[in-house]
Amino acid sequence: MATRFMSMRNLRFLLYEVFDLASFTRYAYYRQYDRKMLDMILQAASELAERLLWPHFEDMDRNPPELADDTVKVHPMVKTMLKEFGSGGWISTTVPETLDGQQLPHLVSDACQFIFSSANYSASAYPGLTDGAARLIENFGSKALYDVYVPNMRSGKWQGTMALTEPEAGSSLADITTTAEPTDKGYYKIRGQKVFISAGDHDAVENVVHLMLAKIDGAPAGVKGISLFVVPKRRVSEKGALVPNDVVTSGIFHKLGYRGCPITQLSIGDKDDCRGYLVGKPHHGLMYMFQMMNEARIGVGMGATAVATAAYYASLEYAKTRKQGRRISEKDPTQPQVPIIQHPDVKRMLLFQRAVVEGSLSLLLQCSKYADLQKVGSDAEKEKYTLLLDLLTPVAKTYPSEMGILSISQGLQCLGGSGYCDDYPLEQYYRDARINPIHEGTTGIHGIDLLGRKVLMKNGKASELYLAEVRAAVEEAVKFPNLEPHARELSAALDKLIAVTSHLIGISQRKGHEHFLADATLYLELFGIVSIAWQWLLQEIAVQKALEKELPSGEHNFYQGKFYAFRYFFSYELPRIEGLIKRLMNSDGLTVEMDETFFQD
Amino acid sequence: MATRFMSMRNLRFLLYEVFDLASFTRYAYYRQYDRKMLDMILQAASELAERLLWPHFEDMDRNPPELADDTVKVHPMVKTMLKEFGSGGWISTTVPETLDGQQLPHLVSDACQFIFSSANYSASAYPGLTDGAARLIENFGSKALYDVYVPNMRSGKWQGTMALTEPEAGSSLADITTTAEPTDKGYYKIRGQKVFISAGDHDAVENVVHLMLAKIDGAPAGVKGISLFVVPKRRVSEKGALVPNDVVTSGIFHKLGYRGCPITQLSIGDKDDCRGYLVGKPHHGLMYMFQMMNEARIGVGMGATAVATAAYYASLEYAKTRKQGRRISEKDPTQPQVPIIQHPDVKRMLLFQRAVVEGSLSLLLQCSKYADLQKVGSDAEKEKYTLLLDLLTPVAKTYPSEMGILSISQGLQCLGGSGYCDDYPLEQYYRDARINPIHEGTTGIHGIDLLGRKVLMKNGKASELYLAEVRAAVEEAVKFPNLEPHARELSAALDKLIAVTSHLIGISQRKGHEHFLADATLYLELFGIVSIAWQWLLQEIAVQKALEKELPSGEHNFYQGKFYAFRYFFSYELPRIEGLIKRLMNSDGLTVEMDETFFQD
Repeated sequence: MATRFMSMRNLRFLLYEVFDLASFTRYAYYRQYDRKMLDMILQAASELAERLLWPHFEDMDRNPPELADDTVKVHPMVKTMLKEFGSGGWISTTVPETLDGQQLPHLVSDACQFIFSSANYSASAYPGLTDGAARLIENFGSKALYDVYVPNMRSGKWQGTMALTEPEAGSSLADITTTAEPTDKGYYKIRGQKVFISAGDHDAVENVVHLMLAKIDGAPAGVKGISLFVVPKRRVSEKGALVPNDVVTSGIFHKLGYRGCPITQLSIGDKDDCRGYLVGKPHHGLMYMFQMMNEARIGVGMGATAVATAAYYASLEYAKTRKQGRRISEKDPTQPQVPIIQHPDVKRMLLFQRAVVEGSLSLLLQCSKYADLQKVGSDAEKEKYTLLLDLLTPVAKTYPSEMGILSISQGLQCLGGSGYCDDYPLEQYYRDARINPIHEGTTGIHGIDLLGRKVLMKNGKASELYLAEVRAAVEEAVKFPNLEPHARELSAALDKLIAVTSHLIGISQRKGHEHFLADATLYLELFGIVSIAWQWLLQEIAVQKALEKELPSGEHNFYQGKFYAFRYFFSYELPRIEGLIKRLMNSDGLTVEMDETFFQD
Repeated sequence: MATRFMSMRNLRFLLYEVFDLASFTRYAYYRQYDRKMLDMILQAASELAERLLWPHFEDMDRNPPELADDTVKVHPMVKTMLKEFGSGGWISTTVPETLDGQQLPHLVSDACQFIFSSANYSASAYPGLTDGAARLIENFGSKALYDVYVPNMRSGKWQGTMALTEPEAGSSLADITTTAEPTDKGYYKIRGQKVFISAGDHDAVENVVHLMLAKIDGAPAGVKGISLFVVPKRRVSEKGALVPNDVVTSGIFHKLGYRGCPITQLSIGDKDDCRGYLVGKPHHGLMYMFQMMNEARIGVGMGATAVATAAYYASLEYAKTRKQGRRISEKDPTQPQVPIIQHPDVKRMLLFQRAVVEGSLSLLLQCSKYADLQKVGSDAEKEKYTLLLDLLTPVAKTYPSEMGILSISQGLQCLGGSGYCDDYPLEQYYRDARINPIHEGTTGIHGIDLLGRKVLMKNGKASELYLAEVRAAVEEAVKFPNLEPHARELSAALDKLIAVTSHLIGISQRKGHEHFLADATLYLELFGIVSIAWQWLLQEIAVQKALEKELPSGEHNFYQGKFYAFRYFFSYELPRIEGLIKRLMNSDGLTVEMDETFFQD
């Protein structure tokens, strides 16, 4: 078992030195905090993760949830955790004080989420889902709904979920068939099937509150007919008691990883006795749900980063202690073997991991900063940062998810045969992480979202804002002689991204939408690499500033390590855009034109 | 569960249309075979795989081997399989008829191995290991050793293994500490520990025969002191009975996948009663073992290809039947959903898989053909094909292993959430395949083997032969108008590979071996992509020839599919060399120079 799962030093570097978290304490909304308090909160999260979550990382995998007698039994730590998270305010970190929340900056709240997820991804999903579901009711539900559900959710007594997917409607939410029949009693009668519902039922809480998509009888076809409902597992009777609400767990899925959290199949209203409570206006459900989905997508990116981070530290620890072979220049077999971290190829694998995980974390905290600025800025700033956040959501979800898998795979590779065995945690990280390119929208869906919607929305305004952000970093970086060549490379990469985008828009005009989006996944990959290069440049500006001062040797090593990881990214990862660009500039409709019968053989 | 695991049509295409298997029947050594007989053998292998191996693919994963009372209990099918494989001659396919073997061409034998591995990778490992171990005794052992061991191994009664790895000696075999003490009784006393021994012990056979590396007392340090021994689990007493030989299974490893085959830890000679029998001459053990290792490396490449092939067909089947969403051009949500194979991004994922698995299989059968020519050719040809095979071994091992993982991952992705659940086989393929970049030499080791040894051996003669092979394919392809641009692209890629190689040799001269080899893994990746492009071009020449004839529609679709997969490879995969070349031409010693303390934080 590895002894650590993340680096508080790196987290503080990003929060304070790159994203200037301290500056937020000057905004009225966050004025109750100062740096010392923020540090204490991070420290508390770290201790909680270490004490409560980390010890059960392996245990929860080996003893996954079981469905018996209509009850999903989960690991006993879940109950303890939810209680402590509830009483400690960890399920209401960004909720305003007026609603009994902590009113923390998103930068800090998301940093805490990162800490929890790196200690135990499965465990961290429970409170994360409750938080998102509660916020939906808070933002769009009635006061009556709020009063019944939200306090019980934020205290950890009730679980929240997002209940979207159905057997025949996964990526295509337009096709959900769960129905809501209006009554004159203030509720709807819900009937349908939901699958893949995370934390959709378990015995660590007394109730589960589903934020569920359904179609009211007679609603328009497609996404325009989707409404959002609160559908509790147990509803509150007139006398205030919890009574069954005809939501039955008909199955749980046996998964490759992420096993500490049950993924359920739900049968709703089989006895014609399931009541759902409309959230907001009819037929606006998908728009509301997108709030939770967007947060959840950023959350997936953060979870992916967290798991890959823990894997990185596990492989680093192994590489420092495992002795095998000698340096290539050493021909004397009687000399002692050396720790494998001395082999260049092992350093390459470690640098790859570090470049991916620290680059990803930086991008995600960049998004957190935008979320904060969106909240506390002027009206013009709100629009700006909302657009930036919208544009970057598919990137911040996908790059960490896709590259996190490769990063963990290289971590596993560092351990050789031991990486393949369950005596070490790498194989579990490898399994856990594979869910991330799937849940909250597959990578393919996000490619289409980025290229087909986000890049062009509001006449390309989000794209322009993004380019300005990256160019500002380039302009600052060129002032440092150490960074100048890299800044120019990023600038050139940005120009190529612009050229590719124009080229694809031309295809859209000439050949239509299907050709335009055929390689959207590659475009998303390209956009991701450029974005992470931008984040590394931002980090490196902070590094160069730090290195101008006298530093103790441990600190010096930290910044030197950052410098090498930055150089690694620009030397090994950024060049990967060349192949993507070559393909994207030569798109020939291959995948559009190929007939499905040609797959026959 | 999927309904198929490979394509006999594609296998026949490669064997007969690309590699002209039928031409081998003209050699005296293979004259007993004609095309009809070879077809029957392939058909028999396919039926055996379908009847005996495929039904237990999932079952063997869910019920992995257990160690109880010093016995490793494996799935009951193993015993049935080994018996049938032994009696059917499947453990002696390439053994000469004079030694009661089938004397089959390697092309056919390896094709059968592909069929077995795609049906059930874990199961196929048992006979494969026995075959390799038996051949070592056959080639280098005494007649007495042969008589006692080989017939029992080839009949499936005894299991063979390769016992190299030790707790402190994995990649660095120079550091093995297992000892062999000479006696005057015709055997050595063996003492030591071995780990990660595949099929190292199990209850489906009455004996296990380890081909084990050990050092004779007083041997030189390093690899020059390694000898090869036959170390049976049970030795044959003077009366001909099997008696324990002090080889004790002290543990089995719990693995991510490949669970149907036990990987064991062995304690040898703890009671000072383990007898080992020297194979060949003292201190020549590693050289002998390399024969088995090289075969095993090609075998790993084939196994990796086979698992990824089975995954491809499982995802293809899903994509053809699963309905979700509509074409992007279809805006009416009341229209029915379409099979996901109609979505360009899904076709892209399927084409990626097909390009990887059919390209890999082609490269492996190219190696099989070289093995045949090495066997039956003139002396000059023997040298030529030995060199080509040596050069391509790290490529044929690594490309399928590394890309197979990505291929399966895309297969899993095609299934969305279902791919992550064990109701479908993709998650198992994903787990099974992850061993391949590790066993029989990690990818890093093979990079060093290719660039540090193979490319330069005999003054670069193997490299020259390789270039000539690829150029011959280019010259033939330019004659087909459809292929001409692709042939030119491959030719350009080859020129770049040559330029990179020269550049790296320059670094070797200026900065030494460590800088030279620092990015050997990337060089191997580059070499792999170029080699698969070559194989696709070879396939495509055969396709163009076939398309010149009138074809029934099913056949037409097969060749059209090939043409799209070929174009996919050249459009999407070959461009990836650009990024690799950019890095390799700018190598700056980053990973050599980075101090390990910079990983501290």
